Amino acid sequence: MGGDKAPLVILKGIQNFRLKSTYQNVKFLLFGLESVRPLLAAHNLDQPGIEFISCTEVITGDTEPRLAVRSLKDASMRRAIEAVAEGRAQGVVSAGNTGAYMVLSKLILKTLDGIQRPAITGLFPSHKNHVVMLDLGANADVNAEIMVQFCLMGQAFSKCVVGLENPSVALLNIGSEEQKGNFVVRETHSLIQSTASVTNYKGFVEGNDIFTGNTDVIVADGFVGNVALKTAEGTIKFCVDLLKQTMKSSWLARLGILCAYPFLKGTQKKIDPRLYNGAPFLGLRGISVKSHGGTDEVGFESALKVAYNLIHNNVNQKIEEEVAALQEKLEVNV
Amino acid sequence: MGGDKAPLVILKGIQNFRLKSTYQNVKFLLFGLESVRPLLAAHNLDQPGIEFISCTEVITGDTEPRLAVRSLKDASMRRAIEAVAEGRAQGVVSAGNTGAYMVLSKLILKTLDGIQRPAITGLFPSHKNHVVMLDLGANADVNAEIMVQFCLMGQAFSKCVVGLENPSVALLNIGSEEQKGNFVVRETHSLIQSTASVTNYKGFVEGNDIFTGNTDVIVADGFVGNVALKTAEGTIKFCVDLLKQTMKSSWLARLGILCAYPFLKGTQKKIDPRLYNGAPFLGLRGISVKSHGGTDEVGFESALKVAYNLIHNNVNQKIEEEVAALQEKLEVNV
Repeated sequence: MGGDKAPLVILKGIQNFRLKSTYQNVKFLLFGLESVRPLLAAHNLDQPGIEFISCTEVITGDTEPRLAVRSLKDASMRRAIEAVAEGRAQGVVSAGNTGAYMVLSKLILKTLDGIQRPAITGLFPSHKNHVVMLDLGANADVNAEIMVQFCLMGQAFSKCVVGLENPSVALLNIGSEEQKGNFVVRETHSLIQSTASVTNYKGFVEGNDIFTGNTDVIVADGFVGNVALKTAEGTIKFCVDLLKQTMKSSWLARLGILCAYPFLKGTQKKIDPRLYNGAPFLGLRGISVKSHGGTDEVGFESALKVAYNLIHNNVNQKIEEEVAALQEKLEVNV
Repeated sequence: MGGDKAPLVILKGIQNFRLKSTYQNVKFLLFGLESVRPLLAAHNLDQPGIEFISCTEVITGDTEPRLAVRSLKDASMRRAIEAVAEGRAQGVVSAGNTGAYMVLSKLILKTLDGIQRPAITGLFPSHKNHVVMLDLGANADVNAEIMVQFCLMGQAFSKCVVGLENPSVALLNIGSEEQKGNFVVRETHSLIQSTASVTNYKGFVEGNDIFTGNTDVIVADGFVGNVALKTAEGTIKFCVDLLKQTMKSSWLARLGILCAYPFLKGTQKKIDPRLYNGAPFLGLRGISVKSHGGTDEVGFESALKVAYNLIHNNVNQKIEEEVAALQEKLEVNV
């Protein structure tokens, strides 16, 4: 059990998750230091269907991914991923060290047939449905074929987690005209067009189109996707900070905002990062979901729901079918 | 005179600009269709120091940049840029077709000695000073040497427009560790380190660091910079839309926000895109500033101020000195 506020946030998140009728029969394997075991009872987690597995090592936020791979064989993170690889669990959720988690997940679970690279996949708020975006940081340098695979993985994610039947997909670009963009984006666009390999493909969108919700899935390389994600987070934080400063500026402002507070609360919910928490490394043989390290129990519960939906709706089967069909189209095209 | 609301916004913007004592002696050459001339008097622009030059052709928002280059020789945009190239003006500001303006500016003005590519350079709000960011979209694919030039150009811009003496600069990346990032960012970082060619270099920042103001200049390739800019714009619009929806949700929310309104107004000013309007194509022999096409007279006035500051503070001389010093360091390094 990793994360800035582990193990309490993890235990509370699981407790809350299991209170919902949909999830009450979900079984858990919990991996942690022996010292965590006594805390289970206090969170009503000493139940049938919940097994605690004691580990002797820990991967902290500072652990080098290399070290996590070479040694620390009894670390809870590694053993939880191994449980998925060995079929004892269908998915793993961790709020621990992102780099180590990504490297270990890739190494132990391995990619799905036909998938070249796993992608960090997440949800953005929008005026319509939640928008799926990938890659949010796993692969800084990619090629067109990998980007097309991201399109298919993103659509499978949208079907399983957002619940859309036929999600649209677009490439993140810096203009909507054909000749716009960097080399990889232009190559990807022309590959999709020449192979007709992506259904409901909408072409290009720009950064300001993410939040409109007009496109259901937005694909970028991991460098661009990560910059977009973190810029959006930074912008929201900046706006919230300005609002707080405004409140401090006068009693009238404070009174006004207090009157509006219950309604602002509702508004804030729409951009609450906890409700968008949980980003899988999509494209691996088994579900591996990353929770934000600093989230609370509400956020961790969201990550558990993402994992549940991906497993319950067979996301990997969907991806494999789509990628097999893509492979055929690419071969015909060659 | 181009832009969505030309010529009125342009004329009002100039009128307001000239009311400020700092700028009252700035001379103007105004290029437009003959039909615009009668409007000058109404804006108090039939004055000494303001010359109207009648043109017979127009580049609209739909004009292909190629067409603007090959024909339309008497278009106001082209003739205004030519006035700078021929030394009759020191800078040009336009709210017209961005693609055409960029291509024509580059073609007619040409790059400064040693500069390989001009970069669209703009300002972001932050908790501290205004943050300079480039490239915001001129060059989707670049190399390390071009990125180092962007660092130097951004610092010159910060000195001239923000007024900082020794602005810090960082590369936009997806993590702060050395091995993070895409190929170009890592190459740029190692080139800066091996040549010690950039003073006050701070290494890497991430998307959420833009608004903190901890770094004065942030450099990215034009693809990444444009995605960051438009994602930030989209996020702010999304937050403002949510706030408006909140106001509509109940009379108490409306009352509260009305109480806080004068103070929120002050807050909003900090993120008012009109006050950040005006992004030059930096690195050309002459100042060419792009105003947002849809801005109003307040925004156009901001763009005029940017042009004035760049000219008044000799930005191009600063850039040429820095780039000459860079060239020497690169040669020593080879």
